[in-house]
Amino acid sequence: VTILSYGQTEGYRPLREAYLKYMVQAKGIEAGIENVIMGSGGTQGIDLVTQAFLDEGDVVLVESPTYLSVLNVLYKLGARLVAVETDENGMIMEDLEAKMKEYAPKMLYCIPTFQNPTGCTLPADRRKRIAELAEQYDVIVIEDDPYCALRYSGEALPPIKSFDRSGHVVLLDSFSKIVSPGFRVGGVVADEEIIDKMVLAKQCADTHSTLLTQAICAEFLNRNMLQDHIRSVIPIYKEHLDRMIDGMRKHFPETCRYQVPDGGLFVWVELPENIDSRELLRRCAARNVGFVPGCPFFLDPEDGVHRMRMNFSSQSLENIDKGIEIIGEEIRNY
Amino acid sequence: VTILSYGQTEGYRPLREAYLKYMVQAKGIEAGIENVIMGSGGTQGIDLVTQAFLDEGDVVLVESPTYLSVLNVLYKLGARLVAVETDENGMIMEDLEAKMKEYAPKMLYCIPTFQNPTGCTLPADRRKRIAELAEQYDVIVIEDDPYCALRYSGEALPPIKSFDRSGHVVLLDSFSKIVSPGFRVGGVVADEEIIDKMVLAKQCADTHSTLLTQAICAEFLNRNMLQDHIRSVIPIYKEHLDRMIDGMRKHFPETCRYQVPDGGLFVWVELPENIDSRELLRRCAARNVGFVPGCPFFLDPEDGVHRMRMNFSSQSLENIDKGIEIIGEEIRNY
Repeated sequence: VTILSYGQTEGYRPLREAYLKYMVQAKGIEAGIENVIMGSGGTQGIDLVTQAFLDEGDVVLVESPTYLSVLNVLYKLGARLVAVETDENGMIMEDLEAKMKEYAPKMLYCIPTFQNPTGCTLPADRRKRIAELAEQYDVIVIEDDPYCALRYSGEALPPIKSFDRSGHVVLLDSFSKIVSPGFRVGGVVADEEIIDKMVLAKQCADTHSTLLTQAICAEFLNRNMLQDHIRSVIPIYKEHLDRMIDGMRKHFPETCRYQVPDGGLFVWVELPENIDSRELLRRCAARNVGFVPGCPFFLDPEDGVHRMRMNFSSQSLENIDKGIEIIGEEIRNY
Repeated sequence: VTILSYGQTEGYRPLREAYLKYMVQAKGIEAGIENVIMGSGGTQGIDLVTQAFLDEGDVVLVESPTYLSVLNVLYKLGARLVAVETDENGMIMEDLEAKMKEYAPKMLYCIPTFQNPTGCTLPADRRKRIAELAEQYDVIVIEDDPYCALRYSGEALPPIKSFDRSGHVVLLDSFSKIVSPGFRVGGVVADEEIIDKMVLAKQCADTHSTLLTQAICAEFLNRNMLQDHIRSVIPIYKEHLDRMIDGMRKHFPETCRYQVPDGGLFVWVELPENIDSRELLRRCAARNVGFVPGCPFFLDPEDGVHRMRMNFSSQSLENIDKGIEIIGEEIRNY
């Protein structure tokens, strides 16, 4: 009966408790129940924290490229976006500090693990440094970490939040990538003052999130089904990634550059300079193969013309083989 | 599998289709699938349409008193609220037109059926007139109608939306009051141009609403369980209302004024001038009886000092008897 009635805006209490336990044990985060709010997927977490803190004209630092939907949310609020320079391991700390000094940003948005779209992962020393800089320059860090459970190689890294001593880091996680996106359940861990503002924003947004799917996620955690489920999907996703990389080695010309990600869902490709990924998509789509061209991930869409993001989780191995062969052909024929 | 994956922002297609059929058949609304979006309860519908259309300083007309949570949403957006005068049947049309002329409002928010908190219902001629005025003065009407299925006496009335020839009326309905609030499923019927803007806002807000509970609501509609369910709860709610009114006739002094509502969940009471409903609540709460004091429902909270809203749906008949007796005693002893 409880899950059919109105619930608390903060989320379904048994899920908040189970999620807190999971975050403390699995991720080394110091937090209490007052630091946890459940939202409708990770998307709502971003919407609530940005709504609660951003005024028109506020500067937000982002990785470039970054998750394209977050750009829409930030533009809608009238934020001024500034890109931090990156290398193959993500944001460069010297540039991050320089931009914090120059622009006095209110917020930094980043995806530290298996970044969308690049697949890059920030090493532990940079994570620690981000937490220090956030405190020093009084910047709220949105640490959007929905892919971190999907690791196929290398060691798990502590979240930025685990280095946070001053309450500046807001950790967003989601059940979308590991249980079901259709459930729309995500969790947020943050300083109590930040959570309180998010609760106020959420009261206006939707009163609370669906209790039924929150209750299912709570059972997943309490019965230790989440870890079992993750353990069971990792080899499958890894096989898909390996198959995609094998195909790329075989069919893509050597002028295409890419990193093999340690996890996540995406392979990010730099195409030769003569190839416009939007035109390449048109040609591939005519043969029933899709990917996302790079442009919408960048503050300046021009920066993405020669780039593309491929997803290896959603297609069968046979389709990956065929698709990569077709994309490779179209690149060579371009 | 469909309901576990990502879904369309507009809502789960089978539910949109079933809901459209229900609105067309049961409510006489002319609409197509492009006019329907499903949100997370009625709350999100309000949030999305106000976000999509209101700029800071825009005037919004409201009934006073009105649903208190909508006031928070409108204040958050920096809207300027202007109250329309009401009588025992809701908004007075002459004052509505005068306010439209004087303030050039962008929006009118109203609850036409069993209003929250007053329980008033707008008669059909006023509904028709609102649709005409909305067209003439180019005002978006948010018709928030979550209680309309809960009618215990009198005849069903057509929604304002059924008189809408110009696409100015946005009809919000909700499964919260008739299936489950915890599901967080609500439907919106509006002009396609308005729906498109709401879809954009919803992409930023939460991508889409939970599919599992949307699918359950679709089954409810497709198996005609909704009508059966409503038919089964009506006599129960009516019994609760009758019991509350009987108790009030017995225990409340004659200086208390109230209308018996034709439906909904609430009885609205005007207390004698010497009684502050907030202090009355403190005294009743000490004896374990609750109600909502009138202040937060008004633009000027002072207007609500001598008023209170009681809910008759959520307590047992015995508790209603006891509660009304205690409130009556505390009014007399005040």
